[in-house]
Amino acid sequence: MSSLAQQVLGKERRALSKAITLVESSQPQDQQRAHRLLEEIMPHAGNSIRIGVSGSPGVGKSTFLEAFGLHLIKAGHQVAALTIDPSSNRSGGSILGDKTRMSALANEPRAFIRPTPSGGQLGGVARRSREVIALCEAAGYDIIFVETVGVGQSEIDVANMTDCYCLLLQPASGDVLQGIKRGVMELADVIVVNKADGALLSLAREAASQVMIAVSLMGDKVKNWKCPAVLASALKSEGLDDVDSAIHKFIQLAKTTGRFEKNRQQQLVIWLEDEVLYELSAQFKSDLNIQNRHQKMCQKLDSNSVPMQLAQQFVKKYLKRVNHDWTT
Amino acid sequence: MSSLAQQVLGKERRALSKAITLVESSQPQDQQRAHRLLEEIMPHAGNSIRIGVSGSPGVGKSTFLEAFGLHLIKAGHQVAALTIDPSSNRSGGSILGDKTRMSALANEPRAFIRPTPSGGQLGGVARRSREVIALCEAAGYDIIFVETVGVGQSEIDVANMTDCYCLLLQPASGDVLQGIKRGVMELADVIVVNKADGALLSLAREAASQVMIAVSLMGDKVKNWKCPAVLASALKSEGLDDVDSAIHKFIQLAKTTGRFEKNRQQQLVIWLEDEVLYELSAQFKSDLNIQNRHQKMCQKLDSNSVPMQLAQQFVKKYLKRVNHDWTT
Repeated sequence: MSSLAQQVLGKERRALSKAITLVESSQPQDQQRAHRLLEEIMPHAGNSIRIGVSGSPGVGKSTFLEAFGLHLIKAGHQVAALTIDPSSNRSGGSILGDKTRMSALANEPRAFIRPTPSGGQLGGVARRSREVIALCEAAGYDIIFVETVGVGQSEIDVANMTDCYCLLLQPASGDVLQGIKRGVMELADVIVVNKADGALLSLAREAASQVMIAVSLMGDKVKNWKCPAVLASALKSEGLDDVDSAIHKFIQLAKTTGRFEKNRQQQLVIWLEDEVLYELSAQFKSDLNIQNRHQKMCQKLDSNSVPMQLAQQFVKKYLKRVNHDWTT
Repeated sequence: MSSLAQQVLGKERRALSKAITLVESSQPQDQQRAHRLLEEIMPHAGNSIRIGVSGSPGVGKSTFLEAFGLHLIKAGHQVAALTIDPSSNRSGGSILGDKTRMSALANEPRAFIRPTPSGGQLGGVARRSREVIALCEAAGYDIIFVETVGVGQSEIDVANMTDCYCLLLQPASGDVLQGIKRGVMELADVIVVNKADGALLSLAREAASQVMIAVSLMGDKVKNWKCPAVLASALKSEGLDDVDSAIHKFIQLAKTTGRFEKNRQQQLVIWLEDEVLYELSAQFKSDLNIQNRHQKMCQKLDSNSVPMQLAQQFVKKYLKRVNHDWTT
């Protein structure tokens, strides 16, 4: 076994960070090492509850992750959080300065926070989140949070890599469901109505009952499970026991019915599919012949071109190409 | 020329709807017809201002599109809006019932609203938005709105298919920039602070000046263009002249400097790239041999597997396959 794998299994934080960086690297030589590392690590991964934490901007995801993370640490858990670093395409970094987020959790020796640089994908889930989850598990973290932005493809991605999808809402003036996409609601296993404190408490109660009505209209995502709407205040660390207990109940049910294992197996299939398609486009793009042909095609583009058609012809030719010269 | 193309150019609404449905179809026989239709249509497309309209849920995008759309129609324009239908993976449809959105605009003979079913991509831009834009242009619409959700990859997608990216914000209690991703701010050509009416007016003014400070810190996206923060109330149809004039000024500058045309040419290249990668994965997935091999590989998956590695080997084999039998 490589020393890096040993160090990760030995719960060395710096080794874990190093391993994640290796796995996230796109250098070919790093990828070979990453494959070997993952082969060594995978048998020791999987022993965690993976929790997706979703919600619209401003709902209090960071505050919730910090408060709930500290709560779980007090209860004896080791917590890893894959958070979103709202990165910029042009300059990198967020407006509010993400480094100062979750400082109390970041200072906990039993917590590990990894901001996933969203890179090219604005707000998207990092390409290697699943590998990062496995590495954190191998390093002994038994609760893994995966933060997401509350809308878009990344919701489905996160639901596809976690055991429990937790949606945060806030009491809004008027209709709490305004703007919440039905698709996102339907992914939820547990809904938390955050900011249920002070003047907002009665609004939060109202929101929770509206949510319960909406949920009951939708039909069950998981058999025999009614997605609950739990009141909490991350700011005041209130209601976190209830959140904990709701997630715990959900996981217990999933484990008892066999859904938990079945779900993880299905997620493995999706993982492989995603990787295959990613690899296909990566190897296609790195083909020099392709690059030349593609560039020539781009130069001929004008406003009368039909990209849909050109692309179909191009790919057909590519797939027929091997052992033949590409003639046009 | 096909009769469908003639009807679209003849501004027949039903033909336009039919053409869009044809272009969105994934049936191979439809695709052949779609290619021909697009070849006929493309020389007549392009004569519009394409405006991306982005903003977080609840900011008032629908209300804005309706009010601003009606405003532009009064000024003599023909307006098409590609709106997002917050569709559900499980059941389809939105909670609040999207069909009742923008009813006044929908009833306008000079307006055309096409809800883009987000389908597999929660909240994402429909795969065929660019073709739909071209069809609407050929049918005489000279202002095209493309709605998006304010976060995620779809922002970049929409910025990559429009001439002007318009970001809606609302006056928030506290910091208006809370939760606004820097990456999204940086895409904006024009920022509209909506809901600038009644009790919120002074908050809106404050928000606008905060935004101007943030924008000035970011550096210019377009040379010689300072992204303005315009106050408006879509609900009361106030400030829409200012929005119109800000967009108009931006487009004028872009046309004068040549940026407008250059941008459209670059977008054509991105369009083609997207199509090529989409086609590659589509043709790969439809290969029966692949399907069989893939299924076998999935059956062998267990929790010790390293999908990243399996995928790389699988794709390498696939690309070497042609004219050889695939042996393992």
